[in-house]
Amino acid sequence: MSKQAPVIAIDAMGGDHGPEVTVPAALDCLRQYPQLQLILVGQDAVLRESLAAHGRSDHPRLRIHHASEVVAMDDLPSRALRNKRDSSMRVALNLVRDGEADACVSAGNTGALMATARFVLKTIPGIDRPAIIVTLPAANGCTHILDMGANVDCSAEHLYQFAVMGYELVRAVENVDSPRVGLLNIGEEEIKGNEQVKQAARLLSSSYLNFIGYVEGDDIFTGQVDIVVTDGFVGNVALKTIEGLARLLGQALREGFQKNLYARLVGLMALPVLRGFKQRFDPRRYNGATLLGLQGIVIKSHGNADRAAFANAIRMALLEIDKAVPERIGERVATIFANGAGIHEDAPHTTRMNRA
Amino acid sequence: MSKQAPVIAIDAMGGDHGPEVTVPAALDCLRQYPQLQLILVGQDAVLRESLAAHGRSDHPRLRIHHASEVVAMDDLPSRALRNKRDSSMRVALNLVRDGEADACVSAGNTGALMATARFVLKTIPGIDRPAIIVTLPAANGCTHILDMGANVDCSAEHLYQFAVMGYELVRAVENVDSPRVGLLNIGEEEIKGNEQVKQAARLLSSSYLNFIGYVEGDDIFTGQVDIVVTDGFVGNVALKTIEGLARLLGQALREGFQKNLYARLVGLMALPVLRGFKQRFDPRRYNGATLLGLQGIVIKSHGNADRAAFANAIRMALLEIDKAVPERIGERVATIFANGAGIHEDAPHTTRMNRA
Repeated sequence: MSKQAPVIAIDAMGGDHGPEVTVPAALDCLRQYPQLQLILVGQDAVLRESLAAHGRSDHPRLRIHHASEVVAMDDLPSRALRNKRDSSMRVALNLVRDGEADACVSAGNTGALMATARFVLKTIPGIDRPAIIVTLPAANGCTHILDMGANVDCSAEHLYQFAVMGYELVRAVENVDSPRVGLLNIGEEEIKGNEQVKQAARLLSSSYLNFIGYVEGDDIFTGQVDIVVTDGFVGNVALKTIEGLARLLGQALREGFQKNLYARLVGLMALPVLRGFKQRFDPRRYNGATLLGLQGIVIKSHGNADRAAFANAIRMALLEIDKAVPERIGERVATIFANGAGIHEDAPHTTRMNRA
Repeated sequence: MSKQAPVIAIDAMGGDHGPEVTVPAALDCLRQYPQLQLILVGQDAVLRESLAAHGRSDHPRLRIHHASEVVAMDDLPSRALRNKRDSSMRVALNLVRDGEADACVSAGNTGALMATARFVLKTIPGIDRPAIIVTLPAANGCTHILDMGANVDCSAEHLYQFAVMGYELVRAVENVDSPRVGLLNIGEEEIKGNEQVKQAARLLSSSYLNFIGYVEGDDIFTGQVDIVVTDGFVGNVALKTIEGLARLLGQALREGFQKNLYARLVGLMALPVLRGFKQRFDPRRYNGATLLGLQGIVIKSHGNADRAAFANAIRMALLEIDKAVPERIGERVATIFANGAGIHEDAPHTTRMNRA
């Protein structure tokens, strides 16, 4: 843990449930982490009321930072960016830019969060585009996959940058020395991939990364790969497909154990077994996607996250602060893209982390 | 059912298990369908032995058609096409081309099957590229999705052709008047899709199809859409992802019910419930992908299909013969692409179906 106590700015108004979820989750994390400081960003009166409802009108490690506006879940990213300059999302990101917070956590609109974070924090020099990385359960652990929707059309160079960012993140937060990087592709030998994927494979093969080659969709779950790299279109479709199938199977299993008295009785008896299963694959456990490649830590919580899930997103931020993820990426990128390839014109700025 | 008795050519050597699976599955189907005639294509001696082992050295509605070679599961499509002209796969397709069979079923190498089928049967005039369509379980029924890997880079026009083919197939085999067609996309409003997807949406909107607009990965399972259209790269990743997740969850569930004596006992009691669940999502039930857009019916079985699964692929062929799927597609395409757009140079040839 860095010497300074970690400070996290929470977009307290974001997500489907707003303060109803963000405030109790924040209080849970304060209880769990005695060093943690939180800034709840949002409408002062609403947040005060919510805190009071949870019996904590004040807390020594918590403060409210007023922001008058709220980005709606269906606001267009460009409009949120242009018209809602005093939104809880924007102001929380400003706090990171200004060095008052080490990270921002938001359950708000993904597109708006990405656009605003990119505008406010800028990308790390050498990174052209930020990407979204998520964690999914796999046999014997978990797999990290990016990009999950920030970039629809990606060049080979972009995929390579995603790989570098994912590698440095996983190395830091999972404490693995040399995580395995795979490039998502399809299995037909001769038509293997489109041009970008083939080119990206060449870039990855000659890089410092532990590149294990092409992987297919089912490899996400086999535990044979730690970081799966793909473009945002494919990644987003894969993620949504996973969510959809998990929901259908969960529903069918619940219905199966409810369809008659016998099934219900067995279902009751099977609860301990099913609970273990549910816990392992509980999406709340995996809540907290990282917006990688920015000059600051930004964690995106699922919009409909509940208290426990949102707390996990805060924990993810805490871990990335502790491991100084953006600095690691920045240092690595500076060495490998030093020749000017992929250098982004955004100028670096002073953040709390840079100063630390 | 057409007046002629349906004849299906089976690539009896294809797949991970070859005759061990194809022969008993063929015999099962002959028992079930008293009109059905089957041609087992493959090495005469091997097939004779296999039939004898199943106690049927001869059957009035079954004949063996000798083919000396076998396409291996890892043969490159181009090599299979060039070098194995007497493979069971190629010869089975020849029988369809020559009007001796109404359909071909193979569990062989997908790439080789697609390349060979395209070469032997040619595409339907007006269709530029064949596509692979699969059926997946969904809430209240099933969803059909294409392309699953035949075409990596697709233009808007290709996606439109896929939609037309999928629509005509589903209308025929599911007996629905106006199945709902969705275009697979991602949810971010402003970056919605790449150029091809946006253009395809415009084409679909002004077509005769029941186009319901963009759908996301999770919609595959909600029962809100009947036909999901996407390019072969995305489709293949989605399909493999689904297979991988289903396998992981199934494994975890089995492990959960085995980890101690209590869990085992409950697992035994839960068998009737779990069986219903397993049956509904049994991949064998959904075995049999159709290679759409060819001048003939070609069904691809999963390579590791077992007897029951392979029999389902034969049933799929039977259904498409009954519904004259290629003719329906051909007629539709002739009317909508009559202006010359998307006309493919392959000349039509005489098949058993054309003559019927």
